[in-house]
Amino acid sequence: MHFPGMPAPLARVVEMLSSLPGVGPKTAMRMGLNLLTRPAGDAAALAQALECLHEQVGFCPVCGCFSEQGHCHFCDDPSRDAATLCVVEQPVDVLMMERGHGYRGSYHVLLGRLSPVDGVGPEQLRLASLDQRMKQGINEIILATSATVDGEATAHYLANRYQHAGVSVSRISRGVPEGGELEYLDEHTLSRALDQRVSWQHHA
Amino acid sequence: MHFPGMPAPLARVVEMLSSLPGVGPKTAMRMGLNLLTRPAGDAAALAQALECLHEQVGFCPVCGCFSEQGHCHFCDDPSRDAATLCVVEQPVDVLMMERGHGYRGSYHVLLGRLSPVDGVGPEQLRLASLDQRMKQGINEIILATSATVDGEATAHYLANRYQHAGVSVSRISRGVPEGGELEYLDEHTLSRALDQRVSWQHHA
Repeated sequence: MHFPGMPAPLARVVEMLSSLPGVGPKTAMRMGLNLLTRPAGDAAALAQALECLHEQVGFCPVCGCFSEQGHCHFCDDPSRDAATLCVVEQPVDVLMMERGHGYRGSYHVLLGRLSPVDGVGPEQLRLASLDQRMKQGINEIILATSATVDGEATAHYLANRYQHAGVSVSRISRGVPEGGELEYLDEHTLSRALDQRVSWQHHA
Repeated sequence: MHFPGMPAPLARVVEMLSSLPGVGPKTAMRMGLNLLTRPAGDAAALAQALECLHEQVGFCPVCGCFSEQGHCHFCDDPSRDAATLCVVEQPVDVLMMERGHGYRGSYHVLLGRLSPVDGVGPEQLRLASLDQRMKQGINEIILATSATVDGEATAHYLANRYQHAGVSVSRISRGVPEGGELEYLDEHTLSRALDQRVSWQHHA
């Protein structure tokens, strides 16, 4: 989006903001103008926080979650069950899992999922460290990869890889999302929810 | 939005991004994660651009538009008609006007609009410099304040202030926006469009 007469420093901010997900050129423009009309300290504070972002946020060498230094919040917490491993694709998935507050086990981040189309094979995933952890008294491995074709393929691959390791292998359930109206659901979700129906006694 | 285990540097970026217009906590989270997964140089470049924003963007002392130094792009352009003044509320309105590419006159930014509710009176607007300019051979003043109650009141005030100054005073037209379906228009816009109908000969 070209605005004749727009000062170059503003145009640079707007252009960079519009490269962020969910931010179109109009939103980026609004954001840039908002920063320009607010006190200079606000833009400077955001700049400062961005400077620190990559410097200060790293990954846990054990599970692959976000970590500020060394082991992460979860691996360092002795109250968490180290014998239960929840395997996810990305560090952000761990944050999403934790929002539910129900899980008290450990995590393992693959940093990707199998994708023949994109040339991602098992060797690109964090599997060597997972193999290592599986030898250290794991009771259950929960496959929490995404419900996409590639996520499902990754779950299948992991189930095959570890099903003879003497651990219980499970997959997060699929079905109607909480609050979901049947009217707006796709047919695959609905038929899966029917196939995997749960006896009323087990339904919370 | 609280994510247990989210690293503080990421949380800071997310919090600041979510203070921007049109950015909710979920979008801010997506933006923060996106910046974290992209090369560190991207976040650093955005930080750099933000640092420069207030330092390098100022306002033209004549018209009040954005300007990188001294007079703005428009006041410095000898091909623009200095005898026609388009009066707008904010510097961003100038950028919006320029997108139409049709206007070749000059601008004057009020830096606000009359708003009794917010305690904005004539003395808070850039009127002293407008009075000054009106004495320097202006032929027409175009009132391009917003089509809101306050914008309309501001236009009325300006029309009264300058109607005896020997200049032609005009107001940007109101009506159905380009591409507007009558079905979705509010009744005020529609009745205004009917009242201010233009003879077919004058209709472009």
